[in-house]
Amino acid sequence: MQGELYFIGLGLSSEYDLSLKALEILKKVDKVFLESYTSLMPELNIKNLEKLIGKKINIVTRKDLEEEDARVILDEALHKKVALLVPGDPFVATTHIAICINAKKRGIKVNVIHGPSIISAIYGATGLQCYKFGKIVTIVYPEPQYNYFPETPYEVLYDNLMRGLHTLFLLDLKVEKGKCMSIKEAIEILLELEKRKKKNIVKSDTLAVGLARLGSHSQKIKAGTLIELKNYDFGPPPHSLIIPAKLHPLEAEALILLADADEKIVKRYLK
Amino acid sequence: MQGELYFIGLGLSSEYDLSLKALEILKKVDKVFLESYTSLMPELNIKNLEKLIGKKINIVTRKDLEEEDARVILDEALHKKVALLVPGDPFVATTHIAICINAKKRGIKVNVIHGPSIISAIYGATGLQCYKFGKIVTIVYPEPQYNYFPETPYEVLYDNLMRGLHTLFLLDLKVEKGKCMSIKEAIEILLELEKRKKKNIVKSDTLAVGLARLGSHSQKIKAGTLIELKNYDFGPPPHSLIIPAKLHPLEAEALILLADADEKIVKRYLK
Repeated sequence: MQGELYFIGLGLSSEYDLSLKALEILKKVDKVFLESYTSLMPELNIKNLEKLIGKKINIVTRKDLEEEDARVILDEALHKKVALLVPGDPFVATTHIAICINAKKRGIKVNVIHGPSIISAIYGATGLQCYKFGKIVTIVYPEPQYNYFPETPYEVLYDNLMRGLHTLFLLDLKVEKGKCMSIKEAIEILLELEKRKKKNIVKSDTLAVGLARLGSHSQKIKAGTLIELKNYDFGPPPHSLIIPAKLHPLEAEALILLADADEKIVKRYLK
Repeated sequence: MQGELYFIGLGLSSEYDLSLKALEILKKVDKVFLESYTSLMPELNIKNLEKLIGKKINIVTRKDLEEEDARVILDEALHKKVALLVPGDPFVATTHIAICINAKKRGIKVNVIHGPSIISAIYGATGLQCYKFGKIVTIVYPEPQYNYFPETPYEVLYDNLMRGLHTLFLLDLKVEKGKCMSIKEAIEILLELEKRKKKNIVKSDTLAVGLARLGSHSQKIKAGTLIELKNYDFGPPPHSLIIPAKLHPLEAEALILLADADEKIVKRYLK
């Protein structure tokens, strides 16, 4: 039998973010794997998901997928129908592209079933417009002991701001080490980068939007100055952060109504 | 009773892109509206969707939502639970933000249920990396009779390319007039803009990726030169187009395997 591999997007929060199409496929395939290290799903209940699809779910680690070329999955997918469940929409994480390429090279048919992703969910959460976002960037944990303090997030922010574009920061996640970057940590890193690079773009009164557990029942979305957000209790991860450029009047209104922004602060950002 | 409005993302292709969470909500609400003019869903069967959710679906037009401030929906949502189904992930279309703001101002509780969107689905479809995309832009139909030939798509492309970033072009849709821009039309517009602006960025041998009916059973994804894609049969809408900047080796490999790109052409784009 010709093998088949389905990359299935789990969405943002729980097993109920799966699409009806995904559920049908999961019921039919021979084997189901799940990776949960490229993002955190705050309300995912694997036991319940197993009940919904009527079969056992095999958890795979970063080591399985990255160091061992996903052999545990691809060997099965050579002659069986196999699904790999991934948080969000597949391939936002580059790891999944490498697996897909490997699968194709081994003659496995590949299908992608899309799910909701943080990348587009931010528009609905904040009212910020999709045409006004620039390049996306991840803030990773610096490792000062190795003199590793990446400046990319700051450079991307600068470049986006110069062009009047908003910046979405995805925050580092090291599930194996139990580390998930918080909005507070991200802001501290950006403030430290400002000290080093001195382009005057990250200030204590800079407007930002913090997003926690987007798409879950306990999601928190709060706009405010960096100093406010640094001290705001967003609760458990996953977190992300947006620093907007100038705002369209509709965006300003949305931030006040959807993200509890202070009118005075937002007004400074109107063109 | 306190009214409630759910914006529910229908996803990319059919009613089976709805999430399990969305289905539960649709079964419970008092009234369901659907707008289908901000995007086309190639396999959507409204009769079947009505069967799935056990109630009638009311179609709303651009006039209902934009000229009449969505009164038909918001009047109901004042005291009832109402759902508005929208293609993709809600608020990628800015129309929905205006409705949400209006609802909030009228004291209606607003909830957003996310769905898969073209914005993130392109990564899974092409293997191009999310960190390498710049600003998104829509190519709209020029109206030469009014001397209207917007240059924004060309300017955005130029700006993205200068910074080594890929560009996603969303294509114009005028459902009321039965007009949905094809990849062929989009390429002709870009070539015309090149003639006018002469920055030497849109050439017949420029690499691009055409995407048709993404997420549907009949999706077509094809990478090639603009001249190839102009003559390629992508079938019915909706279409979109990507013009990549330089490629990472993994992206190049993915385009060959996922989008049937010619190895020679892709190699020109390796850094």
